[in-house]
Amino acid sequence: MKTIASADHHLHFPKGELSGGEFVRPFECPERWDYITRALATSGFSTPTEPDALSMDAVKKVHSMDYLQFLESVWDQWEAEGFKGEALPTVIPARRMQQREPTHVDGRLGYYAMAIETAITKGTYAAAKSSAACAQTAAKLLGPADSSAFALCRPPGHHAGIDLYGGYCFLNNAAIAAQTLLDNGASKVAILDVDFHHGNGTQDIFYNRNDVLFVSLHGDPLHAFPHFLGYADETGIDEGEGYNINYPMLPGTPYSIWGDALADALDQIERYLPDALIISLGVDTYEKDPISFFKLTSDDFTRYGQAISKLKLPTLFVMEGGYAVEEIGINTRNVLTGFMNQ
Amino acid sequence: MKTIASADHHLHFPKGELSGGEFVRPFECPERWDYITRALATSGFSTPTEPDALSMDAVKKVHSMDYLQFLESVWDQWEAEGFKGEALPTVIPARRMQQREPTHVDGRLGYYAMAIETAITKGTYAAAKSSAACAQTAAKLLGPADSSAFALCRPPGHHAGIDLYGGYCFLNNAAIAAQTLLDNGASKVAILDVDFHHGNGTQDIFYNRNDVLFVSLHGDPLHAFPHFLGYADETGIDEGEGYNINYPMLPGTPYSIWGDALADALDQIERYLPDALIISLGVDTYEKDPISFFKLTSDDFTRYGQAISKLKLPTLFVMEGGYAVEEIGINTRNVLTGFMNQ
Repeated sequence: MKTIASADHHLHFPKGELSGGEFVRPFECPERWDYITRALATSGFSTPTEPDALSMDAVKKVHSMDYLQFLESVWDQWEAEGFKGEALPTVIPARRMQQREPTHVDGRLGYYAMAIETAITKGTYAAAKSSAACAQTAAKLLGPADSSAFALCRPPGHHAGIDLYGGYCFLNNAAIAAQTLLDNGASKVAILDVDFHHGNGTQDIFYNRNDVLFVSLHGDPLHAFPHFLGYADETGIDEGEGYNINYPMLPGTPYSIWGDALADALDQIERYLPDALIISLGVDTYEKDPISFFKLTSDDFTRYGQAISKLKLPTLFVMEGGYAVEEIGINTRNVLTGFMNQ
Repeated sequence: MKTIASADHHLHFPKGELSGGEFVRPFECPERWDYITRALATSGFSTPTEPDALSMDAVKKVHSMDYLQFLESVWDQWEAEGFKGEALPTVIPARRMQQREPTHVDGRLGYYAMAIETAITKGTYAAAKSSAACAQTAAKLLGPADSSAFALCRPPGHHAGIDLYGGYCFLNNAAIAAQTLLDNGASKVAILDVDFHHGNGTQDIFYNRNDVLFVSLHGDPLHAFPHFLGYADETGIDEGEGYNINYPMLPGTPYSIWGDALADALDQIERYLPDALIISLGVDTYEKDPISFFKLTSDDFTRYGQAISKLKLPTLFVMEGGYAVEEIGINTRNVLTGFMNQ
């Protein structure tokens, strides 16, 4: 399995993440990437290769133009205001308020945010584009020679919606990969999101479409970020009705329960008969993850990699979250080796 | 003119306000109150008196029960999570996400927030109730003996909506005063909001009602907080259609323009034939205010106090914003003396 990764991920690393009412060192940090590349190198994976330049065609089909213009311009506008910190929103379009983009940078940040912890810095958009390029390049690899690929994306993407950023995400890498597959001949793509957190952005993007089946296993939004999407009754709208499947699970969920949900999810995907499968691969389901509440062991990651491989679909793994940095490499590798050596 | 004020305002003073991507000392600080009481004392006003206990009847007619339960419980829940900072939201119900209150405190904060800068602390709700009590007690003063009164509220209230806090506001003091007047025999009340910032919360609360006319002069939301409400095309809905009037104005607006808008606003109020008038009195229209962009001089405050008095209505002044602390006392006093000595 080839790995696509970009050194440009380093361009994004905010000094602070808003957590518990104070600034902490971001959980989503550059060494996450290092732990994964090291674990892959010591397990016989070939050296990661840099992505091709990002083609914006697929990006513009999953994100709105005004949102892309926001990402392109917001740091310069923030800097021009003379603010000393990193760019964070302070006011938001809450219920019964106008969903209208203001001119001032404070209002623009709030208009496009779905979470507040995620700071935008000078290099954020460049890093986000390099991350999306990894997913896109890896998607293009899938074919007769490569039945699977791994996009080591950083920053992650699955919380980024049509015109929303937050939860460490700016461009939705998995969605861009799915759109790239569709634009290159696939007629149906399934996305299975196994990150601990609900992939609200991916759901948002494909909610009214039936050419992408979105299936997510995650912490119950009553108790877990992103809190405002990921309920079981969200099943899609219009043409997308029935093509969105959520499996919210409670605090303390072990693999015995999680694995049952996975088996059901894989059945649903099999019935959909997709041309390809994308895994939004977060390893924050791990029992020691500092900001999550599932109880998977490192061996469980191998098990579910094996389970996914049984679908025998062209499969693209797109890196999402995972914050127990010591083990993130091992757990990611376990999924991939489980998948390859079933 | 009697002044009602509560020493309990001191119970709310967060260490930090999120501004420009960092924590700064809150602009909405306790010494604002001291500057005002001192300016009034040196101008012959009688000593402020403490309010009666807050009656929750009127409060429950302008805020939702779930929101009041949130304010009551959120600090204890935050503390129980072991967070070290003051309570700030990190994730919000953005467009196309569920408007459903989660269980976790992070999600509850985001569900009820319309702005992020405003931290909740241990004493916040007690201070907010004491502030609302000032407005309510002052409202009850209005009658044959007192044709006007001043509620020196802190924290302010006009950004607090039916079930939303933010912009330094938790309970909507002016709305609670209006409801109290209605509950005590008034059939129509007008609220004139002269704070620099749009009174989004007051608009929200009375948007579908015709027993309260809401008129606001403020910085254009394209450029000014709260950014997502306060446009001229917001005129009310259902029975409230036509009973909401906004005058958004551009950066640099001087009294020559602001005063014209005020004259028009006073005409509208006169035609409404209210039984009483409530002024949401922010003095952040001042030319040296650090977070606003109008250009009123201290003498202009006297002028507009005079203009308001010409309506000859029972009038309650409710303190809102104003952050140029050195001059906040003088400018507030100027409005009140202008009103009394027209």
